[in-house]
Amino acid sequence: MIRVGVIGVGTVGRAVVQILEENRSIISARAGDEIVVKSGVVRDLSKVTDLSIELSQDPYNIVNDPEIDIVIELMGGIEFPFEIVKKALQNGKAVVTANKALLAYHRYELQEIAGEIPFEFEASVAGGIPIINALRDGLSANHILSIMGIMNGTCNYMLTKMMKEGVAFDAVLAEAQALGYAEADPTFDIGGFDAAHKLLILASIAYGIDAKPEEILIEGIKNVTQTDIAFAKEFGYTIKLLGIAARDGDEVELRVHAALVKEAAMISKIDGVMNGISVVGDRVGETLYYGPGAGGNATASAVVANIIDIVRSGKRSPMLGFNHPLEEGLRLKNPDNIRSKYYLRLRIADKAGILAKITELFANHSISVEAMIQRPFAQECAHLLISTHEALERDIRALMGELESLDAVLETPCMIRIV
Amino acid sequence: MIRVGVIGVGTVGRAVVQILEENRSIISARAGDEIVVKSGVVRDLSKVTDLSIELSQDPYNIVNDPEIDIVIELMGGIEFPFEIVKKALQNGKAVVTANKALLAYHRYELQEIAGEIPFEFEASVAGGIPIINALRDGLSANHILSIMGIMNGTCNYMLTKMMKEGVAFDAVLAEAQALGYAEADPTFDIGGFDAAHKLLILASIAYGIDAKPEEILIEGIKNVTQTDIAFAKEFGYTIKLLGIAARDGDEVELRVHAALVKEAAMISKIDGVMNGISVVGDRVGETLYYGPGAGGNATASAVVANIIDIVRSGKRSPMLGFNHPLEEGLRLKNPDNIRSKYYLRLRIADKAGILAKITELFANHSISVEAMIQRPFAQECAHLLISTHEALERDIRALMGELESLDAVLETPCMIRIV
Repeated sequence: MIRVGVIGVGTVGRAVVQILEENRSIISARAGDEIVVKSGVVRDLSKVTDLSIELSQDPYNIVNDPEIDIVIELMGGIEFPFEIVKKALQNGKAVVTANKALLAYHRYELQEIAGEIPFEFEASVAGGIPIINALRDGLSANHILSIMGIMNGTCNYMLTKMMKEGVAFDAVLAEAQALGYAEADPTFDIGGFDAAHKLLILASIAYGIDAKPEEILIEGIKNVTQTDIAFAKEFGYTIKLLGIAARDGDEVELRVHAALVKEAAMISKIDGVMNGISVVGDRVGETLYYGPGAGGNATASAVVANIIDIVRSGKRSPMLGFNHPLEEGLRLKNPDNIRSKYYLRLRIADKAGILAKITELFANHSISVEAMIQRPFAQECAHLLISTHEALERDIRALMGELESLDAVLETPCMIRIV
Repeated sequence: MIRVGVIGVGTVGRAVVQILEENRSIISARAGDEIVVKSGVVRDLSKVTDLSIELSQDPYNIVNDPEIDIVIELMGGIEFPFEIVKKALQNGKAVVTANKALLAYHRYELQEIAGEIPFEFEASVAGGIPIINALRDGLSANHILSIMGIMNGTCNYMLTKMMKEGVAFDAVLAEAQALGYAEADPTFDIGGFDAAHKLLILASIAYGIDAKPEEILIEGIKNVTQTDIAFAKEFGYTIKLLGIAARDGDEVELRVHAALVKEAAMISKIDGVMNGISVVGDRVGETLYYGPGAGGNATASAVVANIIDIVRSGKRSPMLGFNHPLEEGLRLKNPDNIRSKYYLRLRIADKAGILAKITELFANHSISVEAMIQRPFAQECAHLLISTHEALERDIRALMGELESLDAVLETPCMIRIV
């Protein structure tokens, strides 16, 4: 059994505890061992009364606890968490953190101190998207030519609103604050600093570049106006806050700024609070990773993936991820029982009564029509195009058989499912 | 030193040999050991005369060679490669394959035989996209609710052409064949079987479902016509060939078919030969993985990533992926030297000569104007919106300083980079 201590039981920390508890069976199947949260640390004990773990206010209770195997650091800040995780590593404990500011300043010292002890940080960049996993392992055969990403959901939410709804910067900022997407002091997000911390982490993995935030170009989005958006639309661009790392000979340029991006680029299609990171490798070409960049559960998903990875380290996971069925009783569904919406195309003779006959067959099979278009096709012949509400595969097949047997249906009906 | 044997030196096998050779220094930094291709197997020896590896026509030369540590299977087919990789595993050799048909039929037997011996297959699904990595490791904290993917580039190329250019099915198929995107006998692709093999592999990792292709719903795209496309456009859909795995209580439904997909969904934005797979986890929500699903280099990128992973197995990779700078001499670029295209917004007094003065300053800094729009803004005042060709950050900043000092420029100029 592996014992975990969570320093910082806020939104993310609470979600970590809940995932480890609620998804326990698949997690132990994948990790090859049971993982339990032994204790947590929280500033205000009165805020955590519903979790069945030991609680205290002192991080040292966790990093000095000989029973704890893995320390989860979710405090925020830079220098204090640095002291805490150093101590944890010195005590031989593995560390998982979501703290991007800590890594933006201290990642190389931490790599040095960690040595052979696992130190993982998937949640520090782009929340639930396994981008560090992809960059460090999935693309390891490649020289990375560039990384270009939407790494801050607050800015992307604001720019999307400004682009799509014509809202002015100040109004959309107020709205983002009301929705909890932006902090009361939004400088860290809209000034580009949050994205810069993430970019520095990715640049280390891709290039081994040890830069500090102060050394790179960082600009935010507060100068963007509707005048700029009108210009962008006229020339086929969207406006996004991008973090960019690009190889240029022996140099690597790192920059965070608002940018006009061609509408056709995949990265320009990432809207709202979502994050997306495009990585170009010299062999693979462009790959892109998309998902939620923040939120308790999404961030905790990445934290727990790191915990599982640490628990099984040294052991290889079985080829397909686990040896036994992941869950008792899980089985393949009979294709007849699949439910879907359907689109049907019929070629029909254009004569009286045929529509009534066809709609009666739909009703007989309890299949409800959502939309129907009849279009003349050739002389005395028409296309009948129908979309349905959800129905069973079995029923739609029976219906199609009966439709085909009608004299007025001139060829085998064609069906495409609607997803 | 780790010795690799490549069975099947075709497009992908050749790219594997080349990547291991040409990207040798980063690969050994990431793997922690040197990796060399010792030998290859090819049906027609006269087709491979330019690679400096031992060549033969007999796969058993590789699987029985005591010096070979890792066998790369890129033959294609099902039963013969099954015999070959079984023998390799029995001889204690790790195996990497890109063979989806082999896995669609024999993955559970292979997992059984492999036991503790590494057997990897990232390239078998979606070419260069590290989707197996993401699903097995990155999302391991989640119950997978659904997987929905564009897993066949041939079909996606054809459907994209049909949607965007109004080309009929037969014409676009002929074109895809001429371009080498579709085989002379295209049934395997356009009938949905290729996508089905990939879906079965993903379903095993997500759910532990041991289904065969014969047990699931598989339909292709050959019934799709311009009539259907017109209907789809009218109701805000695109048409895609999807592989879908979805959890429904204790059942998992697996299906491959053409589908009408809402234009707003990220998956509907994946065009041409590209692949994209959306995965919804119970905690992380939706994540999506996009990239090239085929091609020698992209597929080889995944094969080599697996080789690297096997070489360092047991050892943990250092926190940031490698211990020393990945490449000698790689350094951060001075932000002044970054090159970009720029968009500038100036508020100017609307009087004679000002435009001449401004364009002269651009010329003085060798910054070339791409497009310029002047719009009246208020009385005797206008917005001047300018996009430039590529220029140096240093020059644009100098230019902006001079622009700001002009009397006729009424506020600090605003600049957004164009990517």
